[in-house]
Amino acid sequence: MRIGILTGGGDCPGLNAVIRAVVRKGIGEHGDEIVGFRDGWRGAIEGDTVPLDLAAVRGILPRGGTVLGTSRTNPYALDDGGDRVLATLDRLGIDALIPIGGEDTLGVATRLAEAGVAVVGVPKTIDNDLDATDYTFGFDTAVGVAMEAIDRLHTTGDSHHRTLVVEVMGRHAGWIALHAGMAGGANVVLIPEKPFDLDAVIAHCRHRFESGFSPIVVVSEGAAPKDGGLMLSAGERDAFGHVRLGGIGAALAAVIEERTNREARAVVLGHVQRGGTPSPFDRVLATRFGLAAIDAVHDGESGIMVALRGTDIVRVRLSEATAQLKLVPPERYAEVEVFFG
Amino acid sequence: MRIGILTGGGDCPGLNAVIRAVVRKGIGEHGDEIVGFRDGWRGAIEGDTVPLDLAAVRGILPRGGTVLGTSRTNPYALDDGGDRVLATLDRLGIDALIPIGGEDTLGVATRLAEAGVAVVGVPKTIDNDLDATDYTFGFDTAVGVAMEAIDRLHTTGDSHHRTLVVEVMGRHAGWIALHAGMAGGANVVLIPEKPFDLDAVIAHCRHRFESGFSPIVVVSEGAAPKDGGLMLSAGERDAFGHVRLGGIGAALAAVIEERTNREARAVVLGHVQRGGTPSPFDRVLATRFGLAAIDAVHDGESGIMVALRGTDIVRVRLSEATAQLKLVPPERYAEVEVFFG
Amino acid sequence: MRIGILTGGGDCPGLNAVIRAVVRKGIGEHGDEIVGFRDGWRGAIEGDTVPLDLAAVRGILPRGGTVLGTSRTNPYALDDGGDRVLATLDRLGIDALIPIGGEDTLGVATRLAEAGVAVVGVPKTIDNDLDATDYTFGFDTAVGVAMEAIDRLHTTGDSHHRTLVVEVMGRHAGWIALHAGMAGGANVVLIPEKPFDLDAVIAHCRHRFESGFSPIVVVSEGAAPKDGGLMLSAGERDAFGHVRLGGIGAALAAVIEERTNREARAVVLGHVQRGGTPSPFDRVLATRFGLAAIDAVHDGESGIMVALRGTDIVRVRLSEATAQLKLVPPERYAEVEVFFG
Amino acid sequence: MRIGILTGGGDCPGLNAVIRAVVRKGIGEHGDEIVGFRDGWRGAIEGDTVPLDLAAVRGILPRGGTVLGTSRTNPYALDDGGDRVLATLDRLGIDALIPIGGEDTLGVATRLAEAGVAVVGVPKTIDNDLDATDYTFGFDTAVGVAMEAIDRLHTTGDSHHRTLVVEVMGRHAGWIALHAGMAGGANVVLIPEKPFDLDAVIAHCRHRFESGFSPIVVVSEGAAPKDGGLMLSAGERDAFGHVRLGGIGAALAAVIEERTNREARAVVLGHVQRGGTPSPFDRVLATRFGLAAIDAVHDGESGIMVALRGTDIVRVRLSEATAQLKLVPPERYAEVEVFFG
Repeated sequence: MRIGILTGGGDCPGLNAVIRAVVRKGIGEHGDEIVGFRDGWRGAIEGDTVPLDLAAVRGILPRGGTVLGTSRTNPYALDDGGDRVLATLDRLGIDALIPIGGEDTLGVATRLAEAGVAVVGVPKTIDNDLDATDYTFGFDTAVGVAMEAIDRLHTTGDSHHRTLVVEVMGRHAGWIALHAGMAGGANVVLIPEKPFDLDAVIAHCRHRFESGFSPIVVVSEGAAPKDGGLMLSAGERDAFGHVRLGGIGAALAAVIEERTNREARAVVLGHVQRGGTPSPFDRVLATRFGLAAIDAVHDGESGIMVALRGTDIVRVRLSEATAQLKLVPPERYAEVEVFFG
Repeated sequence: MRIGILTGGGDCPGLNAVIRAVVRKGIGEHGDEIVGFRDGWRGAIEGDTVPLDLAAVRGILPRGGTVLGTSRTNPYALDDGGDRVLATLDRLGIDALIPIGGEDTLGVATRLAEAGVAVVGVPKTIDNDLDATDYTFGFDTAVGVAMEAIDRLHTTGDSHHRTLVVEVMGRHAGWIALHAGMAGGANVVLIPEKPFDLDAVIAHCRHRFESGFSPIVVVSEGAAPKDGGLMLSAGERDAFGHVRLGGIGAALAAVIEERTNREARAVVLGHVQRGGTPSPFDRVLATRFGLAAIDAVHDGESGIMVALRGTDIVRVRLSEATAQLKLVPPERYAEVEVFFG
Repeated sequence: MRIGILTGGGDCPGLNAVIRAVVRKGIGEHGDEIVGFRDGWRGAIEGDTVPLDLAAVRGILPRGGTVLGTSRTNPYALDDGGDRVLATLDRLGIDALIPIGGEDTLGVATRLAEAGVAVVGVPKTIDNDLDATDYTFGFDTAVGVAMEAIDRLHTTGDSHHRTLVVEVMGRHAGWIALHAGMAGGANVVLIPEKPFDLDAVIAHCRHRFESGFSPIVVVSEGAAPKDGGLMLSAGERDAFGHVRLGGIGAALAAVIEERTNREARAVVLGHVQRGGTPSPFDRVLATRFGLAAIDAVHDGESGIMVALRGTDIVRVRLSEATAQLKLVPPERYAEVEVFFG
Repeated sequence: MRIGILTGGGDCPGLNAVIRAVVRKGIGEHGDEIVGFRDGWRGAIEGDTVPLDLAAVRGILPRGGTVLGTSRTNPYALDDGGDRVLATLDRLGIDALIPIGGEDTLGVATRLAEAGVAVVGVPKTIDNDLDATDYTFGFDTAVGVAMEAIDRLHTTGDSHHRTLVVEVMGRHAGWIALHAGMAGGANVVLIPEKPFDLDAVIAHCRHRFESGFSPIVVVSEGAAPKDGGLMLSAGERDAFGHVRLGGIGAALAAVIEERTNREARAVVLGHVQRGGTPSPFDRVLATRFGLAAIDAVHDGESGIMVALRGTDIVRVRLSEATAQLKLVPPERYAEVEVFFG
């Protein structure tokens, strides 16, 4: 078969592991021809391709990012984008398509499947907020980067008797903050799912100082206070992309410093969390996703994506998969609250 | 309540995270008193205890090993060991016991539960070979150590055009070899579950050399060839614990060197795999196990252990949990075979 | 002898290694008694001490920060601060003092030596900008943290075809940017010693994009453009400590994005660079500094500090040592310029 | 100019950084043509070359090993090897040669220089045992790998109350053991320069156990007891390359176990120490060596090698450079002895 593959949306450690697995099994066991589209749907619209043979995927397993490049281009946001993708697939004689991406990318995949294209998706979100799969690759790596930062910050915080606020990724879901905060022994963890009570945050910081140590506050970029007005407007005032860079973290540090009357500093981890070599967990998960995707294609599946359930890779309908975000449930947040203060 | 806790068998990254979680939630939310027994069942037999208050568990989350110490002492291997444990628990007024360990430790726990002791176990095996839980803490860390070693060995192997054989832990189950080999891009992975065909191994190594690169062979310490006589007897001849240290790895390297007519070297990772700070995955899993164990105790459970199923922590009967080893199934091994040669 | 020790100024990986070495050799070989002052000169002013026996330094070698705590308190900035320190030393019967710190701390040490106190300093600056020593501990660790971040950012930058600006520590000296940029393969490195030409920076970024890859720009927090007005005023407009957190990095990213017409993002590493476990180089250097300091004390030295010259630990007059900052010389900067664009 | 480059002997993290620096500056600033010889002197004998343009060195900075391959081939060990190298250089019109290697490789370089070839060497020894340079690249990385292993082993050793013996590289010089042992907080460090007293080793182990912790013994592969007979003969009895793998480490563990009457285990780090990505220190040093080598070539130098003196890269005569091994001096060993027991 002639199989197309592309990576869309934000990059994620593990994308290359998926590509490698698809190519190794597709060529090695099924005698497929694998065609890579450059920069996600842009390549599919413009017919910008790169041939993926065994040599092309050699040595990419441990590398972050994606050798195919990525973009946020959405064909259906353009007048004739969808038709152009269909035309490209037709012209290149693509028998099946394996798009690797998050909600947007898989949303396009769903519509293409409805249009008759054989599509097997691979879920990708570093925030781990995609329903229908226990985990997505990249998440464990991001948590690891954040945890190592927290580990480092404990000693400097204690030495200076200052609060350290660590802002991590997570616009809508607080999974990275939850896991990194629990793994790093944070004294406060704030997530988008639960608007926080500033007074309680201050109380936890004070309690930590009273115990002779310094607080580490982990906050998702999308977290907000119950009465968020002040800080958000402050964020808006920022003229140099600092909201994107760490509005809430910096704002929170400023407020904590003022109200605890002790120095506070913010650290915004930003893009370091999504770059670099994947963790073992992510390399294995991404590889298994790739193997399962090529198998599904050869089983004649379409309109599905692969997913992790327990230790098994399963197949789920794309329509269900992208139906809703997977948010941190209250009982999971309650687990980390045990360690507050 | 007055709750006893101990760690038995080989140490594992994450043990301290379990202990910390039990203490933090037991004292902080239930007002419990937590008593630690030193060196596993030895401490329970001899009544050798250490009080575990909040200060005792401060800063132990990122530390490997166990602050309680461990041993392989089995009370039921001694004449009156079981009775002495019961006597200790009675004398100290222990209301419930949380033993953290593998098959042996949990086997003792099962018998104590049958004897009427309130027991909630926490599973621990770095080999990940305990049935009834998707994963055990420590495993992900061990896989990470092995994967990093493999990452390092690729470049030195290629530079010298030599085969590198990496021996990893796994007496009866090949999970560490499977995951580390898949994550590290090994060219051959050999596990105890499937006696290997030496000719096939040699063929994969030759094929790899022909492609212009050097083979990495990952082998579980418990793996053996179909016709294992020669090498095992060789292992037995070794006078300095080298079988434990790397009999199969070194023997395999010697044979590969001879038959490929290229240098081969063995690397035996040994105890480095089980020491050191836990990975984020293991810190979170171990912490959640600890929280779930103390909750189960307060729910009046006994004769059970906590386990991971998907993303949930569940409770399973100890009797079932230790019934059989969890081995690598053929379909999981087939996944890594895709990348051989 | 009764020897006092304190750590002043910003913390640095390796401080605990110095303390441990002083205690181990002082007690073990000289039979000294070691007294730690809490939070730098504050503890010396107030007589706030902690006894340092062998148990107190057990296990601290790999830990970042300082077990003694630190502060920026300068006795001579207070009316009677100097006299109070002298009074404390006299009251506690301190025979000699080992202050570990940078310019400020060693400046105080110099004045105390002039006042007749036996003082042997240990240099500490994570920026490596102290003259009279080849390297200071902490610097190698900070460079490592920055380099690992750059390694991670290469793949995400290339995948998204975007510029990544990495802001690292270095107010007055660009050593961290120079070494991390050279080690990380940065395409532009900007340091305080050389006001940069914005047009040249843009040209390098464009050239990198034309080669099919994405630029990594490493910038010291203290770097500034030749005509710095615009961006600095922009920095000033920031209401939430973002200048301290990353004014130049964010401002630079905004300008690069505008002028290359491609996305650019800033990553501000901040305090992560100074926390956490020391690198091997720093652990060895810090340990050797500690050993040399206690030896110097017993040789009756005063008014000196220990320093690294080649592979030797030497003694230099405090007065010379703190005379001037060690800046990046043009020929060192020229080395990294070879790799621009 | 037309410049040849090759890497000989054991591989070392940083070799690719040297190659990259030579190519980037040679082509970028001098308009040179760089020719790589495959597998060290073998390629120079056989005229087996690879063109090194800018694309060939892209992305190799962080990679261990050598893209040129290496071998232990010595032209002067063959009848006409030397002449064949000269013939190759003549035929290919090589104006100057940059050999990167240790004693053997630089010994050949010396003879070629005497034969009239323009030769500028780059020193390489992971053992750091080459005189005339303060450090060689690769050493810091190897020390880091060993130190991380020691860090990991402390917790597992303490948990099991067992001695852990860590065997590191160092046939003739104990630099890796000295620095890794000091950085890792080892309780005993044994190096080839000083035959050890077994009774003293046992005494240190016992003392460590008495303090409530477990001993870590770091031993160079080339270390030997004062009365080495017993253990070496034991090593000889080993049939599977275990001497190469860890004769002294395993033998020492066996003896310590017997005489302390507590479990002891050996860990042999082996090739993991020389593989993988270079540390920041090594990347910077290797890059500077490469830049200095190409500069020396264009200055018309020959018969010299580049070397590190303090923070400067200097030029030394090859004849002096390879005159003698740099061994650990007694005063450096005395530093680590402070921490024994």
